[in-house]
Order: sequence, then C-alpha cells, then structure tokens
Amino acid sequence: MNEIVVHIPAQEAGGYPIVIGTGILSGLLARIDRQFPKKAMFIVTDESLVRAGHFATLTGGRDMPHYVIQPAGEQSKHLGTLSAILEAMEKHRLARDTVVIGLGGGTVGDIAGFAAAVFKRGVPVVHIPTTTVAQADSSIGGKTGVDSSLSKNAYGCFWHPAAVFIDPATLKTLDDLQYRAGLVESVKHAAIADAEYFAFLEKNVDAILGRDTAILEKVAAWNCRIKASVVEEDPTEKNKRRILNYGHTIGHAVESAGNYQLLHGQCVAIGMIVAGMIEQAMGMVNDDRRIRIEAILKKLGMPTKILSAIKPEQLMNLLSLDKKAVGKWPRFVLLEKLGWVWCKDSQWAQEISRDIVEQCLEQLSKKTP
Amino acid sequence: MNEIVVHIPAQEAGGYPIVIGTGILSGLLARIDRQFPKKAMFIVTDESLVRAGHFATLTGGRDMPHYVIQPAGEQSKHLGTLSAILEAMEKHRLARDTVVIGLGGGTVGDIAGFAAAVFKRGVPVVHIPTTTVAQADSSIGGKTGVDSSLSKNAYGCFWHPAAVFIDPATLKTLDDLQYRAGLVESVKHAAIADAEYFAFLEKNVDAILGRDTAILEKVAAWNCRIKASVVEEDPTEKNKRRILNYGHTIGHAVESAGNYQLLHGQCVAIGMIVAGMIEQAMGMVNDDRRIRIEAILKKLGMPTKILSAIKPEQLMNLLSLDKKAVGKWPRFVLLEKLGWVWCKDSQWAQEISRDIVEQCLEQLSKKTP
Repeated sequence: MNEIVVHIPAQEAGGYPIVIGTGILSGLLARIDRQFPKKAMFIVTDESLVRAGHFATLTGGRDMPHYVIQPAGEQSKHLGTLSAILEAMEKHRLARDTVVIGLGGGTVGDIAGFAAAVFKRGVPVVHIPTTTVAQADSSIGGKTGVDSSLSKNAYGCFWHPAAVFIDPATLKTLDDLQYRAGLVESVKHAAIADAEYFAFLEKNVDAILGRDTAILEKVAAWNCRIKASVVEEDPTEKNKRRILNYGHTIGHAVESAGNYQLLHGQCVAIGMIVAGMIEQAMGMVNDDRRIRIEAILKKLGMPTKILSAIKPEQLMNLLSLDKKAVGKWPRFVLLEKLGWVWCKDSQWAQEISRDIVEQCLEQLSKKTP
Repeated sequence: MNEIVVHIPAQEAGGYPIVIGTGILSGLLARIDRQFPKKAMFIVTDESLVRAGHFATLTGGRDMPHYVIQPAGEQSKHLGTLSAILEAMEKHRLARDTVVIGLGGGTVGDIAGFAAAVFKRGVPVVHIPTTTVAQADSSIGGKTGVDSSLSKNAYGCFWHPAAVFIDPATLKTLDDLQYRAGLVESVKHAAIADAEYFAFLEKNVDAILGRDTAILEKVAAWNCRIKASVVEEDPTEKNKRRILNYGHTIGHAVESAGNYQLLHGQCVAIGMIVAGMIEQAMGMVNDDRRIRIEAILKKLGMPTKILSAIKPEQLMNLLSLDKKAVGKWPRFVLLEKLGWVWCKDSQWAQEISRDIVEQCLEQLSKKTP
C-alpha cells in the first residue's frame, strides 16, 4: 500500500465593497463595467422587480441577457429555477468571463449567487438587494442556496459576492408587511451587537417606517458594518457567526409550524421574544432590554406572541429537527445585555434545557397580545 | 454615498491522502469510518459498478444509503442526476455530518463531488475511482461538474476530496477499450512531467495491458504524484495547471466533431500527435519523442490519425469555440522535451498561429494509418 498526500495551498485573504447610496441604481451597470472590464453581464431578477420598474432603471431600457424568476418569492427557490437560469446563461453563450448580477430580495440573491458559484466552476456575482431583509442581511456573507422538497436552503455554496450595492430608494415600492418584517433583522443586529444602534432605531422608527431614505442609508450602513464584522470573523459559521441566529432557532420552528404563511421577520420577532423569556428564566436579565425589544417589535407591527393555531408541543418537536442541532437539541443564542451576546466557555450559542424552553413557549402562547 | 469593505479572511492550507493498494476496496468503509467518526455515509455509484460486484465488495452487502446512476456514463452527467442524488440524500434525512463516497469512473466522481459541494453548503467527499482515467486523472484535483445541454462540464465547483482510495483490482472488470483509452492520461502525465516514468510505461506496457496489479499500483502512484504536484501549484487553473491540457485542446475538438462517439482517451491521443506535429513545424523537435509517443499510443490501440469523417475545417471551427480560449483562438500546450512542457514568458500554453494548426490538421487527416 502506498500513500501520497496532496497539499492544498492556503488561499489569500480578499474582500469586497458594499456601496450604499440613494438613487445609485441607474448608474450601477456603468460602475460594474468599470470594476469588471471586458466581462459579459447576466442579470437575475424576479417579476416583482420588473413590475416595480427597478429592472428598467438598472438597465436603462437596454436589452441585456437576463432571467426573470416567476413567480417571485420563496416558491421559486428550487433546483428547477437554478437549472433554468444556468441553461439561459448557456444559451447566451456566456463563458468564464461573465459576472452575474442579482437584482432583488433574498430569494433572487440566494439563487443568483448559487448560479454564479457553479457556472463554469464559478464566476463573480454582484448583489443589488432591494428588500429590507436582503439589504440588512442576506446579501452579505456569501451564503447562497435553494430549498429542497423537504427543507430550506438544503443545497448551496458559500460564495462571496464581488460587490454589494444598496439603493434605499428601491425600498419605496416594497409591500408594507414585507418592508416591516425585514426590519426585524435590523433590530436583531442592534440587539446582538450595538446598543447605540438600538437607541438610533428606537429614536428613528417613525422615519424608518416613513421610508425616509436619508435615515435608511444610515440603517443600511449600520447593518452592513455589523454583519460584515461578524462574517469576517467566522465566514463559514463555525462559532461566532452563530450570534446571527439570535431569535432564529425558535423563529425557524415557528416558520415551519405556520407552514411558511408567516414572514421570516414575523417569526424571528417571536423568536426574539422567546429568547428574552429564556434569559429571564435563567436569571440573566437585570435591565429593561426585554421591554425595549418588545416595544420596537410592536412599533414594527410584528407579533409578540405565538399564534393560537401553533401549539408549544409542535414547536418542541420542530426544534429537535433543527438543522443546526448539535446532537439532538439545538443551542440558543441569548443576550447578556443589549448589544452583546452571552458567551460561555467560548461558545456563542448555549445549551438550554428542554424544560425551560417548553415553559417559555407555553407561557408565551397563553400571553394576551 | 457610503462604502464599507467586507474582508474575507485567508484560508489555511490543507491536504488529503491518496491511498493506493490492491484489494483495499473491501476494507474502505471501516477506514472512512475511522477518518470521519460519527459521520453518516452516502454512496454514489453507477449500474456498471453494481453489475461488476464492486459496490457489494465496498459495502460488504450491508444496506446503506446510496444512489445508483442509471445509465452509467456521460449521458447521465446532467443537472437532473445531480438533483436526484441530492433529493435522495434529503429523503435519507442526511445532515451536515455526512460524507459522500463516489465509487466509479469520471462521471460518478464528478457528480458525487458536485453533490457533496452543494449539499447543505458543502460536505466532504471521498473518491474511489475505478477506471484508468479516473485513477490517473479525474479523481485528483477537485474539479467537479455536470454537462449542460450545450457544453461539457458547464456547471460545477472546485471541491477537493477528503481522501482518494485507488484499488487497481477494480480495473480487472473494466471494458477493454475504456481500459486502454484511460491509459492515455498516464502517457500524457509521463510526457509532460517525467521522462523516467515514460520509460517505465514503455518497458511495462504489456504487463499494464495484462492488468498486472503490481505494475498498476506503480502506475497509479506515478500518476498521482504528477497530478498532485501540478494541482498543488495551481489548484484553480490560473497557469501551470494548464499543462494537464497537453493533447486536450485538439482532443476536445475531435471529441465534439465525432459527436462524443470516440472515447476521451482516443481523442487525446490524436491531440498529442497533433501537438507533436505543431512542435515539429515550430522547429522545436530534435529528439525521438514524437516516435516514442506515437509508438506507445499505437501499443495501446489508440488512433494516431484523424478519422476520415472529420474534416480539418470542422476542427478549426470547434477550436475557435474552445472554452479555455483567451480571446478567440486557444493556446496550445507543447513539449520542450519528453517530461517537460515548453514554458515561454512564464506561460505554459502558447499562442500558435491558425495557419500552423490548420497545416498540421490537414497533414494528419491525409496520413496513412
């Protein structure tokens, strides 16, 4: 028997810019063309962006190779859509010198990034997120993917974008509930990483709900700095990146229990409330953070209790199926204080007994709204 | 306008073992289990491996989660098969703690590697190559992928295996023509990288054709050392890795012109002959390497001229469509001497005028066999 070792060389550090500016959308293709001279461009978007006029603003009415995802939203987030996009790129005879541009919300960005990651073994992707959740969260960090018939984001890659462009003006056309639910990720960022940002959100919540672009630029910048600092430290989610799952462990169970009829942000809001109750039950709360978090979530019109149709037992079962579960029962991200996650034994997600979680879920489902 | 830079940290160097041994197949699952304790295993193979009994040898008759690609071969190398494999993994409720095992030839390895690269954003893959071409070439280097409706390996990732296990005994059941055609990659490795290995192949060609496993172990070790040293230097094919394309630029055009009825190795053999003719036309040959290369290819039963059905004009057209073409006309990898590729201005692939290539193709198509 003979053994040979193949060495894989280290990969150099890299980086990408996030550019934030109101009204930048119409000038982006020229800018991307300067960043990637001689590259062919391929745009992935969805029908809601076409309807809202943002696709036309981006292209300036030029005829360009593109793919419009129909229908818009999570229901198109599967391998069939990925395959259709890739075949469209092939039919345009695109080669390795292509840059993929994802214009849209989280679904568009996740699929466009996945397509770029596997086209000719990888071409660059540029994200132009157009929803509150995509601008705050999903466009940064390099997660791409589609759902399987059984689970969310079952297939995908880590594929960092070459650039992210955020134009808060694109939020003007966003559906109201989607707009508000997406802001929950901003509250999450503030809660886990920056008490000053949290105070800014509290102070400016009316301007934010009024879609004041000057304030939205600041919100975007704060979100991006927080998300970037977390993913820089732990790009493939071995430990610290888990703090971004604050509110998400319960949130995912609520999403699943509600058959994905509730928006992600609505479920994460409930998850954050439960996290606060667990912190309380653990004797970790000696400030007003629970009141402040609940107050801002209410201002955003988010639910702060579990819908009567969802039973705590069902959530307990779903939690045992959590894909991030180490062993059989997931760990939970909890706050030590506003702007700081509880870290114990170098772990940013904690083991919490089933009993405590069950107690909190039962308490919350009985709460009056 | 506001700009934030996201830093992507450097990735540490890594590595993986290639283990070569006759008869190791039956003990591999135990070995993989030791290398990946607590991981679930999922085997990807094809019907020819099942028929030849190698799948049963690997599993020891145990019932294990697996997917059998049907029919075997390139015709199944598409996104539909990838999707079927991924959905099978989901139905087995596999999670991130899975290791994918690819048992088979190049198609199996390419698809199994691709599936591993995108399942839950990446799980390890172990390759057990069972053909001459996969043992010499495709199982090492991290290229994965499937074909599109228009081109070969259009979609895929770079995804390095966690280990490669080569059992020359699996070659005993391989179809004769496939066996011989796969050996062309060994000739290629020797020609581009090691004159001593070339002499070894010349001396032992009868034992190799007789499938003498003691000699085949040596062949495998030589191939792996050469391929490993090249991909270590340039894992994502920016420059040096291109030397592995020796004979392949013309070879791919011949494959395409023949509607993929000829085996890859047969086409690469023709490509190597043409490369030699180009070297001659460039005045670069002052040794007997062309005679020696042609002699060993003939011993392997490979074609050394272009089939009469394929016209030089057609090959010229196909060369302009080469996916690795920088600009419009591909570069060619040529030998400086046996065991060493011609490197000019730090480039391992050279610009050669269309006229010279056309001349050589015409000359070869007129040659008497």
